[in-house]
Amino acid sequence: MIKGKFITFEGCEGVGKSTQIRMLKEYLKTTNQEAIFIREPGGNSISEKIRELILDPANSSMTSMCEAMLYSSARSQLIEQVIAPALDNGTTVICDRFIDSTIAYQGYARGLGVQKIKLMNELVCGDYMPDLTIFLDLPPSDSFKRKGGHDKSDRMELESIEFHNDVYSGYIEATKLYPTRIVRISPRGSKSDTASAIIKTLQARGLIQ
Amino acid sequence: MIKGKFITFEGCEGVGKSTQIRMLKEYLKTTNQEAIFIREPGGNSISEKIRELILDPANSSMTSMCEAMLYSSARSQLIEQVIAPALDNGTTVICDRFIDSTIAYQGYARGLGVQKIKLMNELVCGDYMPDLTIFLDLPPSDSFKRKGGHDKSDRMELESIEFHNDVYSGYIEATKLYPTRIVRISPRGSKSDTASAIIKTLQARGLIQ
Repeated sequence: MIKGKFITFEGCEGVGKSTQIRMLKEYLKTTNQEAIFIREPGGNSISEKIRELILDPANSSMTSMCEAMLYSSARSQLIEQVIAPALDNGTTVICDRFIDSTIAYQGYARGLGVQKIKLMNELVCGDYMPDLTIFLDLPPSDSFKRKGGHDKSDRMELESIEFHNDVYSGYIEATKLYPTRIVRISPRGSKSDTASAIIKTLQARGLIQ
Repeated sequence: MIKGKFITFEGCEGVGKSTQIRMLKEYLKTTNQEAIFIREPGGNSISEKIRELILDPANSSMTSMCEAMLYSSARSQLIEQVIAPALDNGTTVICDRFIDSTIAYQGYARGLGVQKIKLMNELVCGDYMPDLTIFLDLPPSDSFKRKGGHDKSDRMELESIEFHNDVYSGYIEATKLYPTRIVRISPRGSKSDTASAIIKTLQARGLIQ
């Protein structure tokens, strides 16, 4: 039986996920609520090696399906080594990006098909699906403006603005596949307004106090 | 529309797959039948890098699901870069090990479940499933005797005899999942008897002349 709560954050590049996750972390710390915060590849060496392969610009001939399966393999390692033991132990797990990134990036933007990726994700997760996903809902045209342009450090961020627009559309598709699990929260207001909206949503679902 | 024929060879370690594939290659060459022969990772650099990760003894904490998905990701790269273009072009493709190895090794021997791996394989292959699979049917107790023991070069071959017995049982499960596609051929007779049996089987299915 899974006792811990599993919360994930999703959204396009530059929407402020890191900031919001940090603010949630501070809130939980202040209110003495235990949680672990992870970000794929999650500090385990096998998933890290897999991610290096994916993001290495030398591997530009990598097919979309290969890419999707590599993300899934790194994820399955993280689930078994880190996420499942924590949840089994009753610990809240909060993850920066998870299965819906694969739906948005590979399923939709790379054109593999969201249903195919949904199936792959469910194979990988088994019983360890997120209880709730915060989708920070801001299109790339707005988020890149806020961020001051792309990073040029890896294959994902080197993609065109059209690709990132497709990623956004992919996230919208994901919200249709999982209308209960994925909650859309706009980060257009102040950082603290957004943080409050996230905390209220998590409290309303009984995931945090 | 797929025009080429796709034939795969499967079996436990040491059953004589390489020899039989070489003998089929010679037969096809002698009779002027074109075919390409591949062996995962198939000489493409991305799949090779993935296989290095899987087989590196340093990665002994790799979970079974991660391992299965890594094999699948390497395979999907090989399918799109090599197998699909050849088949689309009408070329016969003959592959040393393919999806049924993952059913036997990860699905059964590692205990992930053969149905789960069947689903994963079908996701990866799409329309490029093998037309016919030759399963060289010899239990490990017999094949290791013939081979003179294990190789000690990679993580797979370092497994115990019990593991290889499970792999054999996994292959038997695969033949139940695909009773038409997978043909069991015993390699207990002479090499040339086995080669003849393989050629006759392929001819009977209209896959070679």
